[in-house]
Amino acid sequence: MNCSIIVIGDEILIGQVIDTNSGDIARMLNPYGWRVNNVQVVGDEASQILRAIEHAFESSDVVLTTGGLGPTKDDITKSVLCQYFGGELYENAEVLENVKEVVTKRGLKLNSLTATQAIVPSSCQVIQNEVGTAPLMWFEHNKKVLVSMPGVPFETQHMFPKEVLPRLLKKFQSNISIEHRTILVTGWSESRLAMEISDWEDALPSYIHLAYLPKPGLIRLRLDGTHPDKDFINLELDRYKSELVERLGDDILHDEDLTPPEILLYHLNRLGFTVATAESCTGGNIAHQITTIAGSSSAFMGSVVAYSNDVKHRVLGVKNETLETYGAVSIPTVEEMAQGACQVIDTDCSIVTSGIAGPGGGTPDKPVGTVCIAVKTPWGIVSDTHHFPGNRSRVIDRATTTAIITLIKELKTKP
Amino acid sequence: MNCSIIVIGDEILIGQVIDTNSGDIARMLNPYGWRVNNVQVVGDEASQILRAIEHAFESSDVVLTTGGLGPTKDDITKSVLCQYFGGELYENAEVLENVKEVVTKRGLKLNSLTATQAIVPSSCQVIQNEVGTAPLMWFEHNKKVLVSMPGVPFETQHMFPKEVLPRLLKKFQSNISIEHRTILVTGWSESRLAMEISDWEDALPSYIHLAYLPKPGLIRLRLDGTHPDKDFINLELDRYKSELVERLGDDILHDEDLTPPEILLYHLNRLGFTVATAESCTGGNIAHQITTIAGSSSAFMGSVVAYSNDVKHRVLGVKNETLETYGAVSIPTVEEMAQGACQVIDTDCSIVTSGIAGPGGGTPDKPVGTVCIAVKTPWGIVSDTHHFPGNRSRVIDRATTTAIITLIKELKTKP
Repeated sequence: MNCSIIVIGDEILIGQVIDTNSGDIARMLNPYGWRVNNVQVVGDEASQILRAIEHAFESSDVVLTTGGLGPTKDDITKSVLCQYFGGELYENAEVLENVKEVVTKRGLKLNSLTATQAIVPSSCQVIQNEVGTAPLMWFEHNKKVLVSMPGVPFETQHMFPKEVLPRLLKKFQSNISIEHRTILVTGWSESRLAMEISDWEDALPSYIHLAYLPKPGLIRLRLDGTHPDKDFINLELDRYKSELVERLGDDILHDEDLTPPEILLYHLNRLGFTVATAESCTGGNIAHQITTIAGSSSAFMGSVVAYSNDVKHRVLGVKNETLETYGAVSIPTVEEMAQGACQVIDTDCSIVTSGIAGPGGGTPDKPVGTVCIAVKTPWGIVSDTHHFPGNRSRVIDRATTTAIITLIKELKTKP
Repeated sequence: MNCSIIVIGDEILIGQVIDTNSGDIARMLNPYGWRVNNVQVVGDEASQILRAIEHAFESSDVVLTTGGLGPTKDDITKSVLCQYFGGELYENAEVLENVKEVVTKRGLKLNSLTATQAIVPSSCQVIQNEVGTAPLMWFEHNKKVLVSMPGVPFETQHMFPKEVLPRLLKKFQSNISIEHRTILVTGWSESRLAMEISDWEDALPSYIHLAYLPKPGLIRLRLDGTHPDKDFINLELDRYKSELVERLGDDILHDEDLTPPEILLYHLNRLGFTVATAESCTGGNIAHQITTIAGSSSAFMGSVVAYSNDVKHRVLGVKNETLETYGAVSIPTVEEMAQGACQVIDTDCSIVTSGIAGPGGGTPDKPVGTVCIAVKTPWGIVSDTHHFPGNRSRVIDRATTTAIITLIKELKTKP
């Protein structure tokens, strides 16, 4: 089944807010073989919204919209939908009850502006929003469906899988299965990898497609299989995935679609190890990425962000001679930080960075983008100096991912 | 001037990558009064790309595309553009030279697949990509312009302002000025604030528009002024901004469009103070957000992420009795952490969190979303218990922003 997504909001067109709703919805649709044909982002303007709806229905029977439902004057989606689907706007008593409840839960009092959220087109079927004040609206016309959902990402993340997706699957039952397999590869550029496996890729059957999804420091290879016979396509995908795994050997970081912090936690839990980080240039981002994963407290104990040399010395125990002789961005410094992190936080493993994220601070010897990374395991310390291209946030991201991958590579060698 | 953006790539439609290019481009166009009419995201499929180009040219004279230019088989944008604008694909010697240079700088060797990046339509004017292998392509037809740019965000961030924007401004000179003023407000819900200032908003002249841009814990109010007379509109915007500032008084966090970490660093530098963080539930994210800002090392010294109670006690000096009597998520604990952070990292100020980000760990007394926040300044400690709605990442984000804002509010009271 195909659908189109319309994202409504001036704030997205001017670049003040990044749309994450369309990606969230696509990821929730993927497992059911639903494909997003296109995403349109339009402003809070009636003619633009109307034009987008017409354009979307040209290619899809299902249109999902997010946003444009706030109580302030610049949100006009409801009246546009009423114009498109007919009927009139009226105050729905059940929605008003729900809005009151949501507002009360937030410890606030209902004001007259928020109360206007209860005004909906008579042509829609309302789906109550459990976590926000803007109701979801389900419209049907000539066997086509449009569902209007809130722009607040958290609300759509909560309501779409719970109330919208089940209704869509029920209404549009399909007999085509789409299944995926993902493997994560390190140490290759996209083009070198594509050349390496081009004979294999060319020989893939028509019902299997290979997609390259490069991320900083890692390439995700995804096999998509489309076939009426679900068992058949799963067997085929497993077979082709095994061929790829055999071919790429040690360069495969993991054979499931997990993020590097998830893979790291998988290995730490598997081995019963704990971990700390000691971060200079990544400024806490490694700890942040790990602790974004629910349950990370089973293995992650803590971190020292040592931005100043003084903290590297006093808290992590890096020798002053080391800092003076080799500098903060050096292999001896990160190796002492790795020892110090395990001692101070009391863990089996540590992940350490020290580098120059820029834009200032570079020297001819150590230009912006130079990052020393060390990881400690119970069987030793591994360290290396890297040179990452790009601006400050790109260097921080690359250093974060590379540091996590470095420890994964050490841990995955242990059965 | 209006333009449309087309984002090309299956990886975005399936939600594996979030499009940040369109927002980056919009933010760079805003100051010149250029408006993005709409953004379309389409897959790597010829018919979809063609249809998107036609749809975009219906509403805009300028179309900017990103993505679909990789060397692998699923990227077909170049041949589609050649079909649309005419001409034929040929190998451009200068592009090949540039691709070689970029590849060599990365310490790699040019392979035959990457070399195909030098094949371009004869109907375009090439703009050399200084930081990547995919060339930018400028097409003109019937006074309309299409510019094809790479999908890698860093490359477009670098090349668009340097080579594309100046050419666009030269080609489409405008005599309308669009100017902006932004103020950041805390302590209001969007709807309450809209009601509070509705009389003022209704009285705005037609050339000034007010936009509400809510972010977790803070609302950005942006005044957009559009007028042929640049001096006039700037004076008018200053006048209306002053009225708003006077009306909202202490609830104004800042009167420029900065992020909370930028405002925090502004006040720390202004007062000559240093800061540390001690983080439990935010797991290093406060430190990460601060160190994302270039130059943050002038005020930010370091951080202790104390995920386990043991680290809270041993490294930050929180008393065992405090942890046993009140628990890790309590006002006495975060206040001792605030003292400890200033001592261990040796700073004037500290920002501290301890809470339950979920999904596990909640109790009837302290449900998921409960976060204790403390900040220390040279004149004392301020602390409070908050209840944030939403899932794990939302709780972490809200706690991070609220903690930073708490310290800003303390610092901004000091002249």
